[in-house]
Amino acid sequence: MIASPYLLYLGHVNDEVGIKTSRGLAVFRPDECVGEFRHDDCELTLGLPRMDFAEAVAAGARTLVLGIANAGGKLGDDLVRDALAALAAGLDVASGLHNRLRDEPVLVEAAARHGRELHDVRDPRSDIPVGNGKPRAGKRLLTVGTDCSVGKMYATLCLEKGMRARGLKADFRATGQTGILIAGSGVPLDAVIADFISGAIEQISPARDDDGWDLIEGQGSLFHPSFAGVSTGLLHGAQPDALLLCHDPVRPHMRGLPHYSLPGLKETLEANLQVARLTNPAVQAVGIALNTSKLSPDEAARLCAATADALGLPCTDPFAHGVDPIVDRIIACFEPSSRVATPSL
Amino acid sequence: MIASPYLLYLGHVNDEVGIKTSRGLAVFRPDECVGEFRHDDCELTLGLPRMDFAEAVAAGARTLVLGIANAGGKLGDDLVRDALAALAAGLDVASGLHNRLRDEPVLVEAAARHGRELHDVRDPRSDIPVGNGKPRAGKRLLTVGTDCSVGKMYATLCLEKGMRARGLKADFRATGQTGILIAGSGVPLDAVIADFISGAIEQISPARDDDGWDLIEGQGSLFHPSFAGVSTGLLHGAQPDALLLCHDPVRPHMRGLPHYSLPGLKETLEANLQVARLTNPAVQAVGIALNTSKLSPDEAARLCAATADALGLPCTDPFAHGVDPIVDRIIACFEPSSRVATPSL
Repeated sequence: MIASPYLLYLGHVNDEVGIKTSRGLAVFRPDECVGEFRHDDCELTLGLPRMDFAEAVAAGARTLVLGIANAGGKLGDDLVRDALAALAAGLDVASGLHNRLRDEPVLVEAAARHGRELHDVRDPRSDIPVGNGKPRAGKRLLTVGTDCSVGKMYATLCLEKGMRARGLKADFRATGQTGILIAGSGVPLDAVIADFISGAIEQISPARDDDGWDLIEGQGSLFHPSFAGVSTGLLHGAQPDALLLCHDPVRPHMRGLPHYSLPGLKETLEANLQVARLTNPAVQAVGIALNTSKLSPDEAARLCAATADALGLPCTDPFAHGVDPIVDRIIACFEPSSRVATPSL
Repeated sequence: MIASPYLLYLGHVNDEVGIKTSRGLAVFRPDECVGEFRHDDCELTLGLPRMDFAEAVAAGARTLVLGIANAGGKLGDDLVRDALAALAAGLDVASGLHNRLRDEPVLVEAAARHGRELHDVRDPRSDIPVGNGKPRAGKRLLTVGTDCSVGKMYATLCLEKGMRARGLKADFRATGQTGILIAGSGVPLDAVIADFISGAIEQISPARDDDGWDLIEGQGSLFHPSFAGVSTGLLHGAQPDALLLCHDPVRPHMRGLPHYSLPGLKETLEANLQVARLTNPAVQAVGIALNTSKLSPDEAARLCAATADALGLPCTDPFAHGVDPIVDRIIACFEPSSRVATPSL
């Protein structure tokens, strides 16, 4: 287990999406985050006290979390230098990047010398089976998206909170490094060997018979040419009863690919339903989740209303406005006779 | 490089599809295969002399190829025992299974003691990039299928031979262990980390400007719930100009999954074209390849003719009847003004 509290790393990153792991922890595990580490050229903040490594140790931090993301997940010289300084100061180091801390001999040596631990959150377990597609008991919802990093993890975590508040059993199933750090378990899906993508999802969301929901964190997009294979295997492994479509309305193009524009919401939903039907022909869409953080409250409200009208589905910003309309739809579709609480207002 | 000639391993396998790697080598590299090794309970044969390890060494064999396949690619006790005996007899050992020879300490120790080599063909190179989906020069054809193991590698290799015979430049690009053993290079796609599937294909089929074709070996099926993620990333990375749909007309259900029936040819073609259009909007289907080895010649001819009629595309068994109708279609669609040889009759 990774020792908390955490110091969250921002480094030199100046791209909001690039610090999503650090921000996710700050948002969903605020009590376990004592500060943020950033270089002078980093203009972002998580709203936590800025600390160097010695200050973080003095404030009680146990682990530096390298909570930054980049395509391919490389471990650059900058990161290695900072990780070495953190180890020397007395911190463990946790990373969600593709390239492993344990593959850097200088880090392994320094950790041993200082008596510290290295955690590679992106190491999948070794007993992942090949997926079998057999129908299994229980209800599952999967978040899907028009692109990478459009709020699938946020939407899934908000939905867990919202469904529990309405008296439903619901459990977040993490498929990415941030989600795993938040949930304490899960599978780092993009680090799994290609043949085992769907099997990994079958493994983390096995049959359940307690009338509860597995809420599975989506990854990538069927329309992202770099990562659609992951999204496809995830859809097949999840056997979702319900899909929640996530979208960032101000994203200018597919993440990292200026030559690819975003697909439409209707097109995205139809493609995801089509792929999902292979393992669950009864799959239904239950709503749209928009990340409206860059819009004014008025713009956000108008866009959610227009989107709901256009798609015939409830639409909300789960983080800003809650998930009640989506929970209502889930109850209407799947829990018609159950006794559940009315929405909180 | 793997030393030839080869002794081809059948072991205890009694499933034709399970020996496809050994058979592929016997068919496409006959001059490099001196014999086959099988236990008494194996009722299959490649038509090569049956030999034990000592006899194979005496006949000149240099490497035992563990050319069998099973879901997940596990290395069982049987295989380890046989590999140890082969090493002791003086053979190198090559394997295309997921689990690595080098991860079995007894094999590593025995190879060192006997001065022999272990080859894990399924080890991907370490510098595979994330796919970028950028349009690239050159023409590419990808084989796709209704299921796994329906003849995609055979069709691709036959097409290479057929296109070259017609004066076209065409190069087979291997994506599986058998193909890699035959071609001498390629990527073991199902062993690649999920985030790099499309990037791996961009890497093995880079831009080319010599008017030649890359013929990319397909894997899996969009309709196989275990492996569709691989097929999706392959479609996106290939940016195919042309798709050749492969099908086994006597396959009773999706490979390994008795609870899944095969999709229709039209449905399969449409789904593959739809996915392929993300990175190449101009993609076209150029034909259907049927594996008619289980049919009578009359049945095969009737089925090919009926399939061609139903789909409006040339249909042939590439291995049994050649690929001329498909090459004709490729020329008509892509090489209208080129001077190419007329079909051999």
